[in-house]
Amino acid sequence: MAPVKYPEEFAGFAVLDTAEWNKPKYINFKPKQFGENDIDIEIECCGLCGSDIMTAKGGEHGWGQITLPQIVGHEIIGKVVKIGSKVTLHKLGDRVGLGAQAFCCLQCNRCKSHNEQYCAKGVTTYDGVYEDGYVSQGGYASHVRAHEYMCFSIPEEIKSTEAASLCCAGLTVYSPLVRYIPKLANGEVPKVAILGLGGLGHLAVQITKALGADAYVFSRTDSKKDQALKLGAKGFIATGSKDWEKAHYDQFDVILNCAIGLSGLNIDAFLSILKVQGRFVSVGLPSVEEKYDVSPFTFFSNGASLCSSALGSREEAIDLFNLAVKHNIRPWIEEIPISEEGCNVALTRAWNGDVRYRFVFTEFNKAFGTGKA
Amino acid sequence: MAPVKYPEEFAGFAVLDTAEWNKPKYINFKPKQFGENDIDIEIECCGLCGSDIMTAKGGEHGWGQITLPQIVGHEIIGKVVKIGSKVTLHKLGDRVGLGAQAFCCLQCNRCKSHNEQYCAKGVTTYDGVYEDGYVSQGGYASHVRAHEYMCFSIPEEIKSTEAASLCCAGLTVYSPLVRYIPKLANGEVPKVAILGLGGLGHLAVQITKALGADAYVFSRTDSKKDQALKLGAKGFIATGSKDWEKAHYDQFDVILNCAIGLSGLNIDAFLSILKVQGRFVSVGLPSVEEKYDVSPFTFFSNGASLCSSALGSREEAIDLFNLAVKHNIRPWIEEIPISEEGCNVALTRAWNGDVRYRFVFTEFNKAFGTGKA
Ligand SMILES: NC(=O)c1ccc[n+]([C@@H]2O[C@H](COP(=O)([O-])OP(=O)(O)OC[C@H]3O[C@@H](n4cnc5c(N)ncnc54)[C@H](OP(=O)(O)O)[C@@H]3O)[C@@H](O)[C@H]2O)c1
Ligand SMILES: NC(=O)c1ccc[n+]([C@@H]2O[C@H](COP(=O)([O-])OP(=O)(O)OC[C@H]3O[C@@H](n4cnc5c(N)ncnc54)[C@H](OP(=O)(O)O)[C@@H]3O)[C@@H](O)[C@H]2O)c1
Ligand SMILES: [Zn+2]
Ligand SMILES: [Zn+2]
Ligand SMILES: [Zn+2]
Ligand SMILES: [Zn+2]
Repeated sequence: MAPVKYPEEFAGFAVLDTAEWNKPKYINFKPKQFGENDIDIEIECCGLCGSDIMTAKGGEHGWGQITLPQIVGHEIIGKVVKIGSKVTLHKLGDRVGLGAQAFCCLQCNRCKSHNEQYCAKGVTTYDGVYEDGYVSQGGYASHVRAHEYMCFSIPEEIKSTEAASLCCAGLTVYSPLVRYIPKLANGEVPKVAILGLGGLGHLAVQITKALGADAYVFSRTDSKKDQALKLGAKGFIATGSKDWEKAHYDQFDVILNCAIGLSGLNIDAFLSILKVQGRFVSVGLPSVEEKYDVSPFTFFSNGASLCSSALGSREEAIDLFNLAVKHNIRPWIEEIPISEEGCNVALTRAWNGDVRYRFVFTEFNKAFGTGKA
Repeated sequence: MAPVKYPEEFAGFAVLDTAEWNKPKYINFKPKQFGENDIDIEIECCGLCGSDIMTAKGGEHGWGQITLPQIVGHEIIGKVVKIGSKVTLHKLGDRVGLGAQAFCCLQCNRCKSHNEQYCAKGVTTYDGVYEDGYVSQGGYASHVRAHEYMCFSIPEEIKSTEAASLCCAGLTVYSPLVRYIPKLANGEVPKVAILGLGGLGHLAVQITKALGADAYVFSRTDSKKDQALKLGAKGFIATGSKDWEKAHYDQFDVILNCAIGLSGLNIDAFLSILKVQGRFVSVGLPSVEEKYDVSPFTFFSNGASLCSSALGSREEAIDLFNLAVKHNIRPWIEEIPISEEGCNVALTRAWNGDVRYRFVFTEFNKAFGTGKA
């Protein structure tokens, strides 16, 4: 492959057809128009998030409509190689991270109140649509262009390959945990159930502990028990067994659902382990065809609530990186050089749950002929 | 009809068959065993709650299984005519109210933290099952027997016929409003959407206002607009019109769903009018066959949550009666003498939405030959 013709073009590994979602192919593409507040990142490494899979699969078994060709990847670490005229947060040569959101308006109430992840004009890092119609492309690529506000400085103490997944997986679990873990009276320690031990879940365990609460892992089988305890979990519950919920009635303040599917989840059983007014918060996003049947009666026995949380704010990302340094929060990763074959292997294995607990693509310079800037 | 043979027997108007849910018949029945903390109330009047209808209908179009014969009614005002040996909260002759819960254990965490409405051993005022298997009977009756803790003193300022519906409808909306209306920064006034203007809804409007928030009524048609404004609503929105939600995007802190059905509710439209992390709280309980289809994506655009609230605590009931005195919160009622015919007319008209906004049954002494105690 010829080296990427930056800055005219970026290159990346793109899904061309959802039927071949796990076989991205090398393509060159035109980046979005460069804005005054944009920066270009030359990518050093990128994590593989469950969302990459669900987006790539598209349709009923994925997240529905997708624009092709599509380059996924939104756990990005790299070097700033170009800055817009109004950029103040970063300078050339800085090491920065970019998560799942590439743009927000900074004008609306939500942006102004540290809720830019809910900005109606927000654009996701891949498969998001800018006002001019340009569809964003993600991080299995030579470069990525994004609004400076969505990019974070990475503390020296954290290696790039370990920082990558903090940008999406870490931030996504940090935000609801920090918002929803309650302060209890009399020094009682809050109890948080982490549902699904994968990329998000294994960071959620570490973060819950760092925030001073007890994490209990709920997994479909008991195969991950030892690892859960090693990650810092206070307890481990296999939800495949019958009546597992009975022993945990009225115990939990928060359930953080990190699962990529709903089929393994009995919502009534999970709601029953919540205390009065407890929360079942989903960060896991299953395929669009998977639904819960709920009615007001579903929540009637304890006034619990069901909600979701999307990503996190810039402010929360900065707090998370500080917390990660202080408490040594790190993803458990498996590195894999980026290439068509690497993408294929990693996407396939990740979908099969065959990674403990995150793939991170590396050796971008080699794949794209970058690294000379 | 011969006068009731109290204290051996109570009498009441009972549903004998769910197919004839709106035609209760006069029966005599044995009360539950008298407990040390129980009191007997000679009933003066009783409101007709939407729950009476849903319970009486039973099955798929109601709330499922019901034990027959069943006397509904749980907005009860009357006089204490007997007290258990350990009763301390009430004395003979007191005027008291009883809502939808007749018993709680007072031992569990929930009972001890003013959440006795969520006590796992709680027994509802009618069609609830005591530990010994006795099935409770409600307030379309001569007398009712209940735990003293579930009975409230009624302030002098409030007439019995107006106090009745505060015991269920009022308390049921007060509890979530007082728990969930947020304190906003900079003196901003919280906005609460009241969905469904019926018995619960018209009290919710008054209570929201008394709690310092702005109430907006969302009703299926515009027929109740003038009355909503008269009740103190700041705005009125007819949800039958197309795209009604567009104008209210990101405006509300809380939605209190007081509707007796879901068919008229577009959940996505309602969630879209909530602010980030806003709440959609249902107190309305539709038939068991009515469901929402939700997935984590349902809440993804603003992190809003879906929950329900059941009744309220004793503490909240006392607070509500004080608030009602201070802010002149009163149900709008239509009185109807209790009798087989009166029950039939009121249940039928209430189900058809033909009352503004609450029926209260009266003249119990005449129907049951009571009033001599
Ligand atoms: N809300 C957001 O902003 C946001 C951001 C990033 C990612 N996400 C979503 O978060 C989810 C998790 O992502 P991830 O990268 O952590 O994925 P992952 O590493 O594959 O982990 C997913 C975990 O879900 C559990 N699981 C898999 N299939 C399941 C099923 N059918 N029923 C119940 N549980 C099942 C498994 O846990 P056990 O083996 O322990 O049962 C698995 O480890 C994905 O849906 C992703 O799209 C959302
Ligand atoms: N959670 C609890 O603890 C608790 C306690 C008491 C009562 N409840 C429940 O609260 C609900 C309301 O009781 P209520 O006594 O206020 O009843 P109600 O007086 O009959 O009022 C119900 C209101 O719901 C709306 N509505 C009726 N059918 C509807 C449909 N198919 N779709 C959408 N909206 C519809 C109507 O408002 P508009 O005409 O304005 O649209 C109606 O005024 C009932 O389900 C009752 O069982 C629950
Ligand atoms: Zn992600
Ligand atoms: Zn914005
Ligand atoms: Zn009621
Ligand atoms: Zn209890």
